[in-house]
Amino acid sequence: LTTDLVIALDAMGGDEAPGIVVEGARIAHTRFPAARFLLFGKEEALKPLVLDGESFTKACEIRHTPEAIGAADAPAQALRRGRGSSMGLALRAVRDGEAQVAVSAGNTGALMAMAKFMFKTMSGISRPALASVLPTLQGETVMLDLGANVECDEDNLIQFAIMGAALARVILHVERPRVGLLNVGAEELKGNESVKRASQVLRETPLPLEFAGFVEGDGIGKGVADVIVTDGFTGNVALKTAEGIAELAFGLLKTAFEYSNLTRIGYVLAKPGLKRMRDHLDPSNHNGAVLIGLNGLVVKSHGSATASGFATAIGVAANMVRDQLCDRIAEDLKQVYPSGPEVTQAATS
Amino acid sequence: LTTDLVIALDAMGGDEAPGIVVEGARIAHTRFPAARFLLFGKEEALKPLVLDGESFTKACEIRHTPEAIGAADAPAQALRRGRGSSMGLALRAVRDGEAQVAVSAGNTGALMAMAKFMFKTMSGISRPALASVLPTLQGETVMLDLGANVECDEDNLIQFAIMGAALARVILHVERPRVGLLNVGAEELKGNESVKRASQVLRETPLPLEFAGFVEGDGIGKGVADVIVTDGFTGNVALKTAEGIAELAFGLLKTAFEYSNLTRIGYVLAKPGLKRMRDHLDPSNHNGAVLIGLNGLVVKSHGSATASGFATAIGVAANMVRDQLCDRIAEDLKQVYPSGPEVTQAATS
Repeated sequence: LTTDLVIALDAMGGDEAPGIVVEGARIAHTRFPAARFLLFGKEEALKPLVLDGESFTKACEIRHTPEAIGAADAPAQALRRGRGSSMGLALRAVRDGEAQVAVSAGNTGALMAMAKFMFKTMSGISRPALASVLPTLQGETVMLDLGANVECDEDNLIQFAIMGAALARVILHVERPRVGLLNVGAEELKGNESVKRASQVLRETPLPLEFAGFVEGDGIGKGVADVIVTDGFTGNVALKTAEGIAELAFGLLKTAFEYSNLTRIGYVLAKPGLKRMRDHLDPSNHNGAVLIGLNGLVVKSHGSATASGFATAIGVAANMVRDQLCDRIAEDLKQVYPSGPEVTQAATS
Repeated sequence: LTTDLVIALDAMGGDEAPGIVVEGARIAHTRFPAARFLLFGKEEALKPLVLDGESFTKACEIRHTPEAIGAADAPAQALRRGRGSSMGLALRAVRDGEAQVAVSAGNTGALMAMAKFMFKTMSGISRPALASVLPTLQGETVMLDLGANVECDEDNLIQFAIMGAALARVILHVERPRVGLLNVGAEELKGNESVKRASQVLRETPLPLEFAGFVEGDGIGKGVADVIVTDGFTGNVALKTAEGIAELAFGLLKTAFEYSNLTRIGYVLAKPGLKRMRDHLDPSNHNGAVLIGLNGLVVKSHGSATASGFATAIGVAANMVRDQLCDRIAEDLKQVYPSGPEVTQAATS
């Protein structure tokens, strides 16, 4: 199935591009040996990185692109002047059918704006969302929106639920994902108008998912649902809060083990167990947010991802292509909007 | 200073009332020996708990109150029928000047509704907020709103900043607290309209605080500001997400130490260091959310708080009285609204 897999890489995006991008592709190559990589970036920088005289070199094709989007460039600026950049050309390769998916660790705002412009939003979807997989006590959970839309109405939330469920089927291999709506309380009375109305529609509409009702913030770490749906403002804050608290825990743990010579020995003895804990929480193992809801696949890697993290993002991209994510979402939407998206929108307003 | 301190306790509020409440008061009594407690609850239940033939018994006065607000009662229900309940009478004792502050571990929605009704909102404040102190890598941070208002405009956020700064002065002893506005990015372009407008006013108005600009979710755990301001929806989700991730970390840590016999020995050796870590993150040491912005002081304890946690909440209450929190906020508000609150509201709209 992966024989025709072609992945477009924005080789100039991210804090340590292009080194990390090429190293990540090299790791991904061992997992997806039949995949081909189109690398958009400066030829003189990429050539020495790609050359290793082995099969990886053959899997790579460099497309010389001297321009790059800066980390501080505004989305509007990127739209005006970024089409010829490494990010812009990686996206165009997907639009033109040369590649099936693009991966970038560059400027998130620019990537979302350009992807929206190039791919257009899927029929039935008002706005795309940024979705990712997070570690939980049970395993993993898909969460969206992580920051594509700072203000969301109930239709956005309902569509996020459908898209998130499709993504959970692909990534978590759950046939009927439990979908929870993030809220300030589990009771039906709680929350703002958008979550209350979205909850009602999700409860009453037959959908290819199990609606789990409202979920509170602590439900994310507990893994009470396969998919957590929220607006982009709350989702972004919650995700980064979670990352910050995980860092806080590791920081305090480090201090705890440095407390005395005995605790230092304790650390050495406990290390094998602690390594598994770190692996489960390691952002590298959960890298790769999907901009979901567009007629084209694009994966956003953390700007500060390691090579191993970037390889994880490429893996997410490869799985989405293999499992035909866009087609699945389109099919699910047909169940919800049998005569076009307007029907349910009218029903909820 | 604490000779006249009288604290009204809702002895029937919380998962394990009245046992935990009385035990908490007993611990608080050792820290504030001159404080008196008015205990509202069932006399037959309270009497045996209070009697120990020592000074604590003398510090307590039982006000027999058979009625109690249920955990599932809606705020409107509490307003209609809860005035004679243990929670209602504890609040009335503050309103009538019998006590300076009330503490309850009962139903949050009911407590907020009744406190708002009985105390009324301070002049210059549109809506009260729920504020609490959270552990960070640097020490502690005040955060608000944690769930009193699911929808907030820029004026609410500006007022939260002023009230949060006053609270940080009282609780964290920082004369000019750094106040950050929670957002999806640190750049000025980012966020919804409310945070953008609030940021502009906070940047341009001379206030008794240091405006630190936008703060992202990971800034909470890092402790980048003394006060974190956000709307009640985002704040509640972020707080509970943080609690969930802390639990996740401890859960994984437990599994890590159970990995093998060697890691189990490692745990025993590392225990003294780990205890300090747990103490820093222990919710009992950070219990006690303040409903700030009313003409009366009330502290909300976690419903599932331990006796030690309830004692912490009583401590927060005692410090607010000692440091005259309401007067400080009123003074700060005068700086912002020299000719009444309407001026700035007009300037921002």
